[in-house]
Amino acid sequence: MSEPFRVAIAGLGTVGAETLAMLRRQAGPWASRGGRAIEVVAVSARDRQRDRGVDLSGIEWFDDPVAMADQAPAEAFIELIGGADGVAKASVETALSSGRHVVTANKALIARHGAALARRAAEQNLALGYEAAVAGGIPIIKTVREGMAANSLTRIYGILNGTCNFILSKMRQTGRSFAEVLEEAQALGYAESDPRFDIDGTDSAHKLSILAALAFGFEVDFDSVYVEGIGGISAFDIASAEELGYRIKLLGVASLQADGVEQRVHPCMVRQGTPIAAVEGVLNAVVAVGDAAGSIMVEGAGAGAGPTASAIIADLVDIARGNVMPAFTIPASQLGRMRGKPMEAHRGCYYIRLTVRDQPGVIADIAAVLRDEEVSMEAMLQHGRADSEGKSVPVVITTHETSEAAMRRAIATIDTCTAVLEPSSLIRIETL
Amino acid sequence: MSEPFRVAIAGLGTVGAETLAMLRRQAGPWASRGGRAIEVVAVSARDRQRDRGVDLSGIEWFDDPVAMADQAPAEAFIELIGGADGVAKASVETALSSGRHVVTANKALIARHGAALARRAAEQNLALGYEAAVAGGIPIIKTVREGMAANSLTRIYGILNGTCNFILSKMRQTGRSFAEVLEEAQALGYAESDPRFDIDGTDSAHKLSILAALAFGFEVDFDSVYVEGIGGISAFDIASAEELGYRIKLLGVASLQADGVEQRVHPCMVRQGTPIAAVEGVLNAVVAVGDAAGSIMVEGAGAGAGPTASAIIADLVDIARGNVMPAFTIPASQLGRMRGKPMEAHRGCYYIRLTVRDQPGVIADIAAVLRDEEVSMEAMLQHGRADSEGKSVPVVITTHETSEAAMRRAIATIDTCTAVLEPSSLIRIETL
Repeated sequence: MSEPFRVAIAGLGTVGAETLAMLRRQAGPWASRGGRAIEVVAVSARDRQRDRGVDLSGIEWFDDPVAMADQAPAEAFIELIGGADGVAKASVETALSSGRHVVTANKALIARHGAALARRAAEQNLALGYEAAVAGGIPIIKTVREGMAANSLTRIYGILNGTCNFILSKMRQTGRSFAEVLEEAQALGYAESDPRFDIDGTDSAHKLSILAALAFGFEVDFDSVYVEGIGGISAFDIASAEELGYRIKLLGVASLQADGVEQRVHPCMVRQGTPIAAVEGVLNAVVAVGDAAGSIMVEGAGAGAGPTASAIIADLVDIARGNVMPAFTIPASQLGRMRGKPMEAHRGCYYIRLTVRDQPGVIADIAAVLRDEEVSMEAMLQHGRADSEGKSVPVVITTHETSEAAMRRAIATIDTCTAVLEPSSLIRIETL
Repeated sequence: MSEPFRVAIAGLGTVGAETLAMLRRQAGPWASRGGRAIEVVAVSARDRQRDRGVDLSGIEWFDDPVAMADQAPAEAFIELIGGADGVAKASVETALSSGRHVVTANKALIARHGAALARRAAEQNLALGYEAAVAGGIPIIKTVREGMAANSLTRIYGILNGTCNFILSKMRQTGRSFAEVLEEAQALGYAESDPRFDIDGTDSAHKLSILAALAFGFEVDFDSVYVEGIGGISAFDIASAEELGYRIKLLGVASLQADGVEQRVHPCMVRQGTPIAAVEGVLNAVVAVGDAAGSIMVEGAGAGAGPTASAIIADLVDIARGNVMPAFTIPASQLGRMRGKPMEAHRGCYYIRLTVRDQPGVIADIAAVLRDEEVSMEAMLQHGRADSEGKSVPVVITTHETSEAAMRRAIATIDTCTAVLEPSSLIRIETL
């Protein structure tokens, strides 16, 4: 029997404690799968005294994760501290420069510094494992990097944030408003007390930028991701989507085009009956589109201690077996610089929601604005009438394919019309 | 640059020709992913003259695949001949005994001889890759073996045959009969001219037996799979399922229980709104349930030249990189003998469809039979009445959880009642 594979864990929050507990239990069959047992030899966390429900006996304690990264008698360093910079980044860099493999669940770190860290790892033939950073327990990194190795990927997209998907699903089921459902999600523990990074799309954007780099073979380019959250989605939008045959999902979409890479996170209307439309509640799902395999969708729990620990240990088992792959599929030295396409250049179909005064001629005025921007209308819905002429009514318009730039100009002009009573809102229709 | 990884392909049908074409094009990025280019040095097929649209120049031709397995200057042998025995088995055995890795898309071969072949491969530290044998382009073998390495799996199930799923989906959409839709599927090329192996569940059973072995760490045990096809599903059943909130799917389900492994393939009623119910048309999907990751579903094209070639090449890239894993996750020498549970021991809920004479007292008689077998009724539906008393009407009954044995005894007794005009049929309700 070969020597155990020794690891050090930095960060003992719920994920760190669960990873430690699973490794200590050795309940899973990874010892035989890895060919080597995996032993936790060192840990580091903020508070040594806190009871985490895990036995720490026989494990070396470090107050400073950077010191642990440098000195622990471990072949791999597991970073579960969080944050794009600071001690998380310093400890990962130290681990790599001292010859240790790194496994991390830190999406912000990889989104911001993935390419540089991958190069550092590659220089020493070390692994940089980040399966746990994207979509929790779903093995999407392995699926794209290895399972779809024979494919040129042209598109990768998905539901990357369970909190947002829970909220949108619940809004549809109950007809309630965003604010009401958010409160419920917080009470249930599906949304943080400060839910900004989830709701505003940042969390999804971190994950999307990592997937795009992996799928297309570029350096991660988080800054070129267009990001829009779900805070502007109304109960009326959800109901309109349903009526038009769509569901509203917060998607991250990356596509490789002749003139660059489009990376965008925003609410989308997706056709009912498509696999992604059927993903409900806190689940995550990612669809990777390859030239040989077609569309492969992987769906499962995108967060939580168990699923995240599962992904961390899968990375460890690979490394323990000697399966050290380039972090972003191709050698880090060959990763190109991504040419990000601006959102204004996006082409697609659109849903717009207008609040207008119920009086003759308003639709004609709006239609004229759209015509002037060469935006072709597909459908128009105006249900019911205001109580009396002159009161406000909602109007929904869907368009054929057009450019984002034209659409934005049209909306800006429409919003100057005196009969338009509130800022109009726009949701992109995604053809999958 | 290291030497290319040399492979020999036996069988040049649509999958073989596509694999050869993809490897020759080198269009995919697997050269850099594998660290080595992959070169086809030998091929074997029945007819040397046939035009396959692929250039065979510079590739050694063998009339006999067994001779090629023995003599080709290749490190890996790709078996695409088909059939559980005969020349497919002989050539794979020869390849392994002459020190070549094997990659195969042959589900019958792995279902019948997987354990023995895995042992032969392990003895020489060779790979036995069969990703292409289960669910085509979907990387479910890799997902279970590596992506879920940290998990103890308790259940794996899925839609493993695209032909059946297409037929069931189409029956639901159109309300047409099985026979009509089968004819249409044949015209569209979604069903073979002799569709027996698809329709009767054999194809799904081959794949399920492989998944069960992989997920639970046993030798493949195809003979203990209970198999029932979709030929008995009527348009009435499809409509009743819809009304009861279910969809009918042909599922393969394997579950690890305290007293053995249950492996079964049969039509199931699955609750609308579950991920598996949303898988429509020719797609395949597999759900693996682990103790840490929870349920992971992978969905995609389960057949076709491109997806199957994608899976074959993914296996080759792994092997070329030196990533040689035990075929069934744990070392072949440690694979236990599976204790198969008989179908009679299955417990679940049931849907039964009866054709009865429309006269007073019939339902009471049937209810009494069920009571005598301790089967508890959940719901009973009898829509409409016959034109005149005494004519036949369909009756649907659903039950609470009971045993298959009790259910079968009840049906046998019910079918002896004079008011029951046709043999009753039974569909299992699957709680997922």
